[in-house]
Amino acid sequence: MNAGMVAPVELFAPKRAGLRRAIIDMPKQKVGEVTRLGMGRKDIIPLWYGESDLTTPAFICEAAHEAMREGRTFYTHKRGLPELRQALADYMGELYRTHIDVERVSVTMSGMAAIMLALDAIVEAGDNTVNITPVWPNSVNAAEIRGVEPRRVPLRQENGVWRLDLNRLFNACDARTRAIVVNSPGNPTGWMIERDQQEAILDYCRQRGIWLIADEVYARLVYDRPVAPSFLEIADPEDPLIVVNSFSKSWAMTGWRIGWITAPAFMGEYLNTMIEYSTSAVPEFNQVGALAAVTKGEPFVAELRERCRIGRDAVVPRLKDIPRVTIDEPRAAFYAFFRVDGISDSLSFAKQLYFDTKVGLAPGAAFGPEGEGWLRLCFASDRKRLDAAMDVLERYLA
Amino acid sequence: MNAGMVAPVELFAPKRAGLRRAIIDMPKQKVGEVTRLGMGRKDIIPLWYGESDLTTPAFICEAAHEAMREGRTFYTHKRGLPELRQALADYMGELYRTHIDVERVSVTMSGMAAIMLALDAIVEAGDNTVNITPVWPNSVNAAEIRGVEPRRVPLRQENGVWRLDLNRLFNACDARTRAIVVNSPGNPTGWMIERDQQEAILDYCRQRGIWLIADEVYARLVYDRPVAPSFLEIADPEDPLIVVNSFSKSWAMTGWRIGWITAPAFMGEYLNTMIEYSTSAVPEFNQVGALAAVTKGEPFVAELRERCRIGRDAVVPRLKDIPRVTIDEPRAAFYAFFRVDGISDSLSFAKQLYFDTKVGLAPGAAFGPEGEGWLRLCFASDRKRLDAAMDVLERYLA
Repeated sequence: MNAGMVAPVELFAPKRAGLRRAIIDMPKQKVGEVTRLGMGRKDIIPLWYGESDLTTPAFICEAAHEAMREGRTFYTHKRGLPELRQALADYMGELYRTHIDVERVSVTMSGMAAIMLALDAIVEAGDNTVNITPVWPNSVNAAEIRGVEPRRVPLRQENGVWRLDLNRLFNACDARTRAIVVNSPGNPTGWMIERDQQEAILDYCRQRGIWLIADEVYARLVYDRPVAPSFLEIADPEDPLIVVNSFSKSWAMTGWRIGWITAPAFMGEYLNTMIEYSTSAVPEFNQVGALAAVTKGEPFVAELRERCRIGRDAVVPRLKDIPRVTIDEPRAAFYAFFRVDGISDSLSFAKQLYFDTKVGLAPGAAFGPEGEGWLRLCFASDRKRLDAAMDVLERYLA
Repeated sequence: MNAGMVAPVELFAPKRAGLRRAIIDMPKQKVGEVTRLGMGRKDIIPLWYGESDLTTPAFICEAAHEAMREGRTFYTHKRGLPELRQALADYMGELYRTHIDVERVSVTMSGMAAIMLALDAIVEAGDNTVNITPVWPNSVNAAEIRGVEPRRVPLRQENGVWRLDLNRLFNACDARTRAIVVNSPGNPTGWMIERDQQEAILDYCRQRGIWLIADEVYARLVYDRPVAPSFLEIADPEDPLIVVNSFSKSWAMTGWRIGWITAPAFMGEYLNTMIEYSTSAVPEFNQVGALAAVTKGEPFVAELRERCRIGRDAVVPRLKDIPRVTIDEPRAAFYAFFRVDGISDSLSFAKQLYFDTKVGLAPGAAFGPEGEGWLRLCFASDRKRLDAAMDVLERYLA
């Protein structure tokens, strides 16, 4: 191909024509569009990501390093080390006062990869999934690039509190609905589903033969009880339930890319092969770090939660006092998600805010059209840094 | 769901009915079916995997550990650390005496993930890919679970040497062909494509607008020259070429799950988002290990290649002397792939061999119907271990 013979504009089309339509049309992730502006810079206040500012605890890093030194650098079990899978089954069993069979547990290359596997197992082009929004966009967009229609059921604000209308949720389902996706505690809203709504959704899914994908990665970041309600507490082992979890949030391991799936046991053999044909297992030495996290990490989880509570209390009251701002007190997760009167393009606003002040927030539009006009601030951060950010925001939003 | 009310046979169908047809029908990976028998055991001679018996060099592990200690445990660049991408561009540029722009390079969660991304970018259900076989099954099967027809063009043995018939290759292509997939040096055959056939295939792909996916993960394991012929040596930057590579083989990093893609620069932004919606980047500290490998690992590559040459010379002549065995002298990669007269079910044979002798080989059937009756032995192993395996095989195949 001699590029010199073709005008640039003509070249463009043939190049893109080599890609699938769904890839060309793939929605960009708008959090990334903002964070890219300041990636790696030290002189900014980055509250745009969904991660705490704590590095991974040393006992986790050292366990991984020890495994490297022992030469655990070879191919390993596709679904995860048996001892890690058992530890996760035990961990969930204890947390939820139930029994989780190890055959239900598969370790994945991040919570995102867990969602990818869940979708690849159950959805075809032409199907739809029903998503409670506003929500972290990746699971919605991952459905979309598979030719699946991601339907959106917005939470509504009722006296400043996020509420899910079950009738709206069920009315959004039809014969092509393959999954209802529930992210609770929710990113970005901090919405947390309660037991009665969980039971209603699970019953509906059982009766209709619809999968329930529960993204529970924020399960431990909850402020009025030890753990957020989990579908695992009420489901039978054979229910059409896929629970997605991750080491990222609870143990400050966002950079490790380790998650896990809890699903009916019969799916294990399929997940084994699907993992083989996609990423082929999490590095064994990293899994040894994860094993340390899940078996010895409870003090850290408690410490992180307390840090987040302090962060929340540093941020939310001050946001509430800004006249242009509307915000629900988040009961879980680690985000202040707030609406600002007069903002109609949150992506441009977030970029401008960053350029003007070096405070990085995520634009609400990243979480769907329902999020337009809103901003997300991650408060899993040092108190002083949050105070500094609030000083800036109070002036900027005055 | 009350499982007690339903007979087991009836239960089975509804459960599987919840999965996509392509997942239910998904071909199992037959290497894994054998290796699973002995995973983690120390008292066996495992020559079934595609990996050397060397642990990852300490300088790579220590670089990763240092990065962990420095707190590089956060979210990172989706397509890889800029310094790693630049190092890979420089590495390939030097190896192939050409210029590779960093914008063409994306780091992936293993070579397998690179293939997954390549397929997701370009193939739809109903398309076909054309594959040169027998071949490592995962790339073929990954196409199949996407509803793509993987066509097979077998190499033929000519006076004991593997040959590719280009006419057969091109005749297998039609209007629905989206990619020709070339794995050279080849797993399991050790077949290595030469320049003239590379040029013919690249020309054909340019003219027909077909993607060329080149899996070059064994590029450094070649015994009659420093590096195997690469499509990167002859392609223009905008050619429809996706080269898949990996840290696994050259630097004994199979357990790290790090690979990279070299593609036209315009694909970078799409790969960025596709990685975000699948695995969201390789752990940063592991990437720092990879950076050490690619910048300081040449002495190790030379050592590994020499070890493989010694392994090859320990194994291949003795196999040739077994009357029932047919084998081509492998010029590249690290496999002895050999046919045994009288074996009609290589999977059962490999399992029985393992049960009887604790020598683990991969069944030829794992690499396609063309591989039935063959076995694959990985000779990237300690000389004494290989001698012991050959003592067993000489008796077993007598």
